[in-house]
Amino acid sequence: MSDVLERPAAAPLDDGQLKVVGTRPVRPDGAEKVTGKAMYGADLALPGQLVGKIKRSPHPHARIVSIDTRRARALPGVKAVVTAADFPDLASEEYEAGESASNLRDLSLNVMARDKALYDGHAVAAVAATSSAIADEALELITVEYEVLPHVTDVEASMASDAPVLHAHLFTQGLAEKPSAPSNIAKRNEIKRGDLEAGFAEADVVVEGRYTTAAVHQGYIEPHACVASFGADGQCQVWSSSQGQFMIRTYCAKILALESSDIRVTPAEIGGGFGGKTTVYLEPVALALSRQCGHPVKMVMTRDEVFRATGPTSGAVVEVKLGAKSDGTLIAADVVLKYQAGAFPGSPVGAGSMTALACYDIPNFSIVGYDVVTNTPKVAAYRAPGAPISAFGVESAVDDMALKLGMDPIALREKNAVRDGVKASYGPTYRNIGYVETLEAIKTHPHYAAPLGPNQGRGVAVGFWFNVGGESTAAVNLNEDGTAVVISGNPDIGGSRASMAMMAAEVLGLPVEKVRPIVADTASIGFSMLTGGSRTTFATGMAVTQAAQKVVEDLKRRAAMLMDVAVDEVEFVNGAAVCRDPAKASLTVAELAAKAAQTGGPIGAQVSLNAQGAGPGFGVHVCDVEVDPETGHVTVLRYTAAQDVGKAIHPSYVEGQVQGGVAQGVGWALNEEYIFDRSGRMENPGFLDYRVPVASDLPMIDAVLVEVANPRHPFGAKGVGEVPIVPPLAAVANAVRGAIGRRLTDLPLSPPKIRAAIDAG
Amino acid sequence: MSDVLERPAAAPLDDGQLKVVGTRPVRPDGAEKVTGKAMYGADLALPGQLVGKIKRSPHPHARIVSIDTRRARALPGVKAVVTAADFPDLASEEYEAGESASNLRDLSLNVMARDKALYDGHAVAAVAATSSAIADEALELITVEYEVLPHVTDVEASMASDAPVLHAHLFTQGLAEKPSAPSNIAKRNEIKRGDLEAGFAEADVVVEGRYTTAAVHQGYIEPHACVASFGADGQCQVWSSSQGQFMIRTYCAKILALESSDIRVTPAEIGGGFGGKTTVYLEPVALALSRQCGHPVKMVMTRDEVFRATGPTSGAVVEVKLGAKSDGTLIAADVVLKYQAGAFPGSPVGAGSMTALACYDIPNFSIVGYDVVTNTPKVAAYRAPGAPISAFGVESAVDDMALKLGMDPIALREKNAVRDGVKASYGPTYRNIGYVETLEAIKTHPHYAAPLGPNQGRGVAVGFWFNVGGESTAAVNLNEDGTAVVISGNPDIGGSRASMAMMAAEVLGLPVEKVRPIVADTASIGFSMLTGGSRTTFATGMAVTQAAQKVVEDLKRRAAMLMDVAVDEVEFVNGAAVCRDPAKASLTVAELAAKAAQTGGPIGAQVSLNAQGAGPGFGVHVCDVEVDPETGHVTVLRYTAAQDVGKAIHPSYVEGQVQGGVAQGVGWALNEEYIFDRSGRMENPGFLDYRVPVASDLPMIDAVLVEVANPRHPFGAKGVGEVPIVPPLAAVANAVRGAIGRRLTDLPLSPPKIRAAIDAG
Repeated sequence: MSDVLERPAAAPLDDGQLKVVGTRPVRPDGAEKVTGKAMYGADLALPGQLVGKIKRSPHPHARIVSIDTRRARALPGVKAVVTAADFPDLASEEYEAGESASNLRDLSLNVMARDKALYDGHAVAAVAATSSAIADEALELITVEYEVLPHVTDVEASMASDAPVLHAHLFTQGLAEKPSAPSNIAKRNEIKRGDLEAGFAEADVVVEGRYTTAAVHQGYIEPHACVASFGADGQCQVWSSSQGQFMIRTYCAKILALESSDIRVTPAEIGGGFGGKTTVYLEPVALALSRQCGHPVKMVMTRDEVFRATGPTSGAVVEVKLGAKSDGTLIAADVVLKYQAGAFPGSPVGAGSMTALACYDIPNFSIVGYDVVTNTPKVAAYRAPGAPISAFGVESAVDDMALKLGMDPIALREKNAVRDGVKASYGPTYRNIGYVETLEAIKTHPHYAAPLGPNQGRGVAVGFWFNVGGESTAAVNLNEDGTAVVISGNPDIGGSRASMAMMAAEVLGLPVEKVRPIVADTASIGFSMLTGGSRTTFATGMAVTQAAQKVVEDLKRRAAMLMDVAVDEVEFVNGAAVCRDPAKASLTVAELAAKAAQTGGPIGAQVSLNAQGAGPGFGVHVCDVEVDPETGHVTVLRYTAAQDVGKAIHPSYVEGQVQGGVAQGVGWALNEEYIFDRSGRMENPGFLDYRVPVASDLPMIDAVLVEVANPRHPFGAKGVGEVPIVPPLAAVANAVRGAIGRRLTDLPLSPPKIRAAIDAG
Repeated sequence: MSDVLERPAAAPLDDGQLKVVGTRPVRPDGAEKVTGKAMYGADLALPGQLVGKIKRSPHPHARIVSIDTRRARALPGVKAVVTAADFPDLASEEYEAGESASNLRDLSLNVMARDKALYDGHAVAAVAATSSAIADEALELITVEYEVLPHVTDVEASMASDAPVLHAHLFTQGLAEKPSAPSNIAKRNEIKRGDLEAGFAEADVVVEGRYTTAAVHQGYIEPHACVASFGADGQCQVWSSSQGQFMIRTYCAKILALESSDIRVTPAEIGGGFGGKTTVYLEPVALALSRQCGHPVKMVMTRDEVFRATGPTSGAVVEVKLGAKSDGTLIAADVVLKYQAGAFPGSPVGAGSMTALACYDIPNFSIVGYDVVTNTPKVAAYRAPGAPISAFGVESAVDDMALKLGMDPIALREKNAVRDGVKASYGPTYRNIGYVETLEAIKTHPHYAAPLGPNQGRGVAVGFWFNVGGESTAAVNLNEDGTAVVISGNPDIGGSRASMAMMAAEVLGLPVEKVRPIVADTASIGFSMLTGGSRTTFATGMAVTQAAQKVVEDLKRRAAMLMDVAVDEVEFVNGAAVCRDPAKASLTVAELAAKAAQTGGPIGAQVSLNAQGAGPGFGVHVCDVEVDPETGHVTVLRYTAAQDVGKAIHPSYVEGQVQGGVAQGVGWALNEEYIFDRSGRMENPGFLDYRVPVASDLPMIDAVLVEVANPRHPFGAKGVGEVPIVPPLAAVANAVRGAIGRRLTDLPLSPPKIRAAIDAG
């Protein structure tokens, strides 16, 4: 139905006429952030505010026999203590909100364990007290009696028939036959085309591999933090750092059985999300504590808690078999994906499956995915969720295929590249994509022809992400002095304030400095889906553009009124209403704003829409590494990432998105991993032991923006934030293969593994 | 022009069908306020916040020779010191914003004295420091060299030709001839009709009096308070308690030469305003301090500062001469009004003049008003600004006239009452007023016939206020669960959150509990004029109603889409879209909200308008007092106030407005006054010495709501908040005259004056 009802976007404006879009103004949030004035989740303080803290399970799998909170409640200074008994026991219900589809009951159980603790760090109780020290003491005074159960953290071990079962009610979905016993495999999905067997029979060359990736965390610098206040009349306020204030509102309402109108969520500045802040952990707990005592409650996670109890992405096993003709035509592909979901179902294996072969036009393929629960933290979205994992396997195998065929790795990808009119592996037919242009950009880039030294290697990989649209609301209001405010309901995680202001300024003919972009709370603007899926500049940008266009239409109408001419005599040019009759003086936005009272009142417009036609994006990366044969240490020497970005509204931000995605992908490839000890406890829950790349680990990453306009967006934009994390895992691994002459298949490519491979060689 | 362009209001809904409007739901802000959770101006705390304080002149009139801030700046912990040199020296410019018309340069000079201190308490410098104690010490370390000048605080003394001149550039406006010398009379205004001399010649009875009122303060419980933060990039935030966040934004932008888009003002909860919070005192100073040091700065006035440096209303002299035929027909009226403006021009004498005779249909009259500067704090608006003062004189004289004619005081007023079709003394022709009905309500009220005891008296008085409309913006957004949010830009000073939610609920067919009303910041909603002039329920309510009606139209369109029928087949009844075809199931708001994504995205609408047709209001009050002949103490025994309220959206709030206005009027009549010593310093700047009535001083005030619908508002509403303060001054004085048999003409009617009158009798 949505196809039929979708509102068509205006035709893209002529690129040559653009005055603001495509330029690089100073970012509107920059000064506030670098001077320390921006208010993050932990920066708000309310009168009477308490400190909330969570008691967490030390066991990865245990039945909760009893919880005794009496001693904690009796401690002076303790104002509230909650356990699962203080939350409604939700019926299982499917619920979707943007990027993070969640079973609501699971979401509630992840926020507070009810009968079982399912991972090391799982919340079992919470307290609110007048000081941090008292809250800590109260946590100690809570006695939890556990019956420790056998646990499983590895994805394949969890799939085994003799594995400890996490959920007695969980029966595998997607099987041909209804399963007779519960299983840790929550779901099996399959995408097929053509005849796989016949395809492989036709192949001249076959490559095969088994690849593994470790669970890695989004690694946002700002830990989860919120303040919640529950009013005596049931009206609540939440201030928190997240990727979606409306998502917070919806989830809190559902988990606490409130109505949306009872909750007002004000977004704090966000210190990184990358998909990991598309769900709730603290907010419902803080509200439950505040409800019990009447005080506002602030909760701020430690880094330890962030690692142990918030979503990393899946550790996974990827099996890939590719068949090609001797001319390089890929003729068959068999992909099996096994993704950790963590304690509750919901790994990104679906998206991993859909993106695995999305860059390739292959007649015969099968992609089978498994969503597997394990005694590890429930995974959360992480930038292009699922895609880097499957791309790591596929792009490693394609690299091996190029080697076996003696073909240039870009030439092999170009030969099999999807183009406009090709039916994507995941279903729809491509239109207006810029993949081939992006391959071309790398093929002709000086980097690709630069010489390599000893112990150095060069790797190429490609990547794909859908990008999404969806529901957004935006308003554009003129101030009385002719400046403007642009209001949206999307937290700015990657430059959306700048892009919103720029698109509005372009339409209004104002300098961008005259347009202030605002991220409003849930009570001050209409509903918007969260910031994620690379949707905001596309979908919310479309709402902003349409709202600004409505304002322009209103300005023309008011100008006609003041000029005493018909509306169609008035045009809007460069920020002024101009009459065709040259005898009439034109009226600027500022002049029209000053006369708003006499032409009908304040000037502004609000637009809500469900944007369609986001347009998928493609990335082509090339990476040079040098391997130290003594230590096995990998240095990334040079990295160039080309991307099909539609139209870059603010090119610096787009480059920043590309650079940031690459940096995270390099960390995933080389350093990052969750390490569990035998008892199932995470051994490295801190940035000293869980090592994300820092500036000195990386070269300047060269971002090449390939602009093939998306005709479904008024300025040709598409999402850009997720594609760049997809290729790096394989690009780095392929470069390492080039440097040491051996294929490594298990991430991270840490020095011991490299040393072992060199020694084995 | 506004008449032509004004948007017509929808026709009033049929009263009999109303389900929400006219009921008395629990107030949406009640629990938050009584539990202490509401965030007032002083309740916000920001990281790194400093304490800002102001150094004030101890002299009522002095040239500032020099200010030495060096020692203050050198004090450890002092982060910023500002004087007038830190503000642009504004050119004189006329500027109007809602209730408070101000000359911008004067506004700036009132915020911070530049060359002269013009009243005891006038700000001369300000500091921001890391603690309150350091700020206090810094104020002491600022050395100001003054040349003390002669001062004048009394209005008539200030009009004298030999009075010390406050402003060398001030020449009286409104004179027939251009004045040759500067004067403290800023302006003379005059309203005339008929032939005054002929009128008095025709009169059978003439009464005459000279009446004085003292300067009184609005007496809001919450002192002025704000937090301001000036960003390194010039983007500012202000949190403050005021009657208009947009007013704060405009004034701060003008005083600091910023653009509106640079400033985001978030309204705090307001602890009383009554007109006194329609201007700025602290906000520009806090911004200037924050600009200098980069820290957020909080400033909170003491009660002493509130009295000495924020607007009271005018002390005044009112001269009234009335002529009547022996049958009671008023034939001539001569009114002279002399109002203190305080240190800068802008007393409410204009409104005092326009309202003085607005209840009477008199063929011959003259009203002359004088706006007079004095060495006292600049006056600010106070509930029906100017009207209680002129009404005190006129209603006292009318009472004397009734006595002289031997007529019942209500009968005399009824005989001369304005009615529909009568041209008001201030210009327009009355339409749809309910004055006669209101007189009738008191005439037939049991109170009016109740017996009086010894030393008791009964007084009657009437009063008028214009009420205004003007520019407002509102939005109504549906949440995904079918609840709704109503957003306006008007601080709730008298129940507007309730009335906005109720009007939206009525239109949407929702229970009012499902509709959450929000007062948004200046960046989250379009422009609205401030809350004042009794405009909000009328004008903003019209915007809310229209926005809700737009939502209903959209819901019908979406329902038609889902039902697969034409839009005109769908009606909206009781919160559901119903198809004429009974085979189609109807769809509730909640069901339509749940399907918003597939019918075009989020559901909401924003409306801006410039509302016309507010409709004036009339009040008729009757008051019984008992005078203790020993002490001169006056006890108010019984008070009944009837008012022409249009349609009471939430009757309890309307009653509260009436009761509150009466309480303030009684204080003005009996207790309140600014007392200056010989050196021009205020002697009673605190609630112990400046005595506002407390609960034990007052009987339960009986409010009688007379509902004559205002056809220009969708539910028939008109402003109600200002009328009730107009009659009490005279009603009390007339009652005292009844009790002691002598007319007192000088407010307040404090015990020594009463004793003196009794003794003189």
